[in-house]
Amino acid sequence: MSSSQDLQKIIAGRRAADFVQDGMVVGIGSGSTIAQVITALGERVANENLKIVGVPTSEKTRRNAAKLGIPMYNVDDVDKIDLTIDGADQISDDFSAIKGGGAALLWEKIVAFNSRENIWVVDSSKRVPKLNQYLPVEIIPYGSDQLFKRFTADGFHPTWRLDQNGNPVRTDSANYLIDLHIPVIENPRDLGQELINMVGVVEHGLFTDVVNRVVIGSDDGVEIIEAP
Amino acid sequence: MSSSQDLQKIIAGRRAADFVQDGMVVGIGSGSTIAQVITALGERVANENLKIVGVPTSEKTRRNAAKLGIPMYNVDDVDKIDLTIDGADQISDDFSAIKGGGAALLWEKIVAFNSRENIWVVDSSKRVPKLNQYLPVEIIPYGSDQLFKRFTADGFHPTWRLDQNGNPVRTDSANYLIDLHIPVIENPRDLGQELINMVGVVEHGLFTDVVNRVVIGSDDGVEIIEAP
Repeated sequence: MSSSQDLQKIIAGRRAADFVQDGMVVGIGSGSTIAQVITALGERVANENLKIVGVPTSEKTRRNAAKLGIPMYNVDDVDKIDLTIDGADQISDDFSAIKGGGAALLWEKIVAFNSRENIWVVDSSKRVPKLNQYLPVEIIPYGSDQLFKRFTADGFHPTWRLDQNGNPVRTDSANYLIDLHIPVIENPRDLGQELINMVGVVEHGLFTDVVNRVVIGSDDGVEIIEAP
Repeated sequence: MSSSQDLQKIIAGRRAADFVQDGMVVGIGSGSTIAQVITALGERVANENLKIVGVPTSEKTRRNAAKLGIPMYNVDDVDKIDLTIDGADQISDDFSAIKGGGAALLWEKIVAFNSRENIWVVDSSKRVPKLNQYLPVEIIPYGSDQLFKRFTADGFHPTWRLDQNGNPVRTDSANYLIDLHIPVIENPRDLGQELINMVGVVEHGLFTDVVNRVVIGSDDGVEIIEAP
């Protein structure tokens, strides 16, 4: 990662944290840009006496936010989430995103689904006209080899997400991940519908009709775009 | 259960087992009617030297079939399933079904999805014009209380599936089950689509566009209906 990209993540993450208000239940995403949001929120809790409750999208986020003094609750232990701030692997011009590079897409989607408002924060390298990177899909282990064969037959060019020992990665919900390599995703909604209807697919990394506001760090500063 | 219903299950189960041919990979469902299919298949393996491989839809089916000498493989250890025989909690006139009373709906659907042909075998009490019994939904534990609240708001009258100790039942894939109590399901396809699009829903007990043939036991004998 270039130091320019690092700086973009820092300024965007800090700006996104400003949207958090006193008394909010805040969904906190995963990834390197969100690490900046967590740092900024930790500072606001310490310096401004900000009172918030956090809901994590991964076990890692839970640990890191708790260390900075943010009280962390499960999504089921709060009434409703006011605002979720999360990153994205790619965001397209139609406000769709691919998420799941960090293997947390299922919990990220559950938290987003239960949030009144969603903000995505990214550096400028994540913006693309159309989504064109690998697409993570979380699947039930039973039947996963059959599903892999089906993805291959459908022309999705699947690969297994493996750990350092060459074993399938297990998500926080103990499922497997397959990454699909589709050159360009022309219609994220339709593809998402096709994938979710395949038996054994728990969730996929396409996020459509979710985001309210995108915070983008660039070399010229931070840009904030409201979704239509 | 009446002895008439017992007898219907026995004759229907035995008739359904006749559709299994030598050399087949056979998906074997779950439930009391399928217990009769397993018994009949075990006899055919012992008496006719029938050579088959079974793929189970539950750990219980795996154990029971293996005891009778049927070699059991995981769905991922076979090339393709030739024929799956499974029961149903209800079958409607449009060849939709509700399954999952035995908590095995996810594996049942995975096996059915990977089968060239599907047969359902039921006693006559399971046939209804429209589906009108409780509908099991398998869900991810994380966020499950939020999903329960959403089902309530949607008018689905959810209840938790609990074990004898009052704890949530865990499926073979370690998920929870919620039963929805919808008086009459007018359009199973649309409801299935609505449910599968709710984040945290892994699968639901509505089976549409799956079955090729239904074997029904009644007091007058066995009826076989080909799906259109």
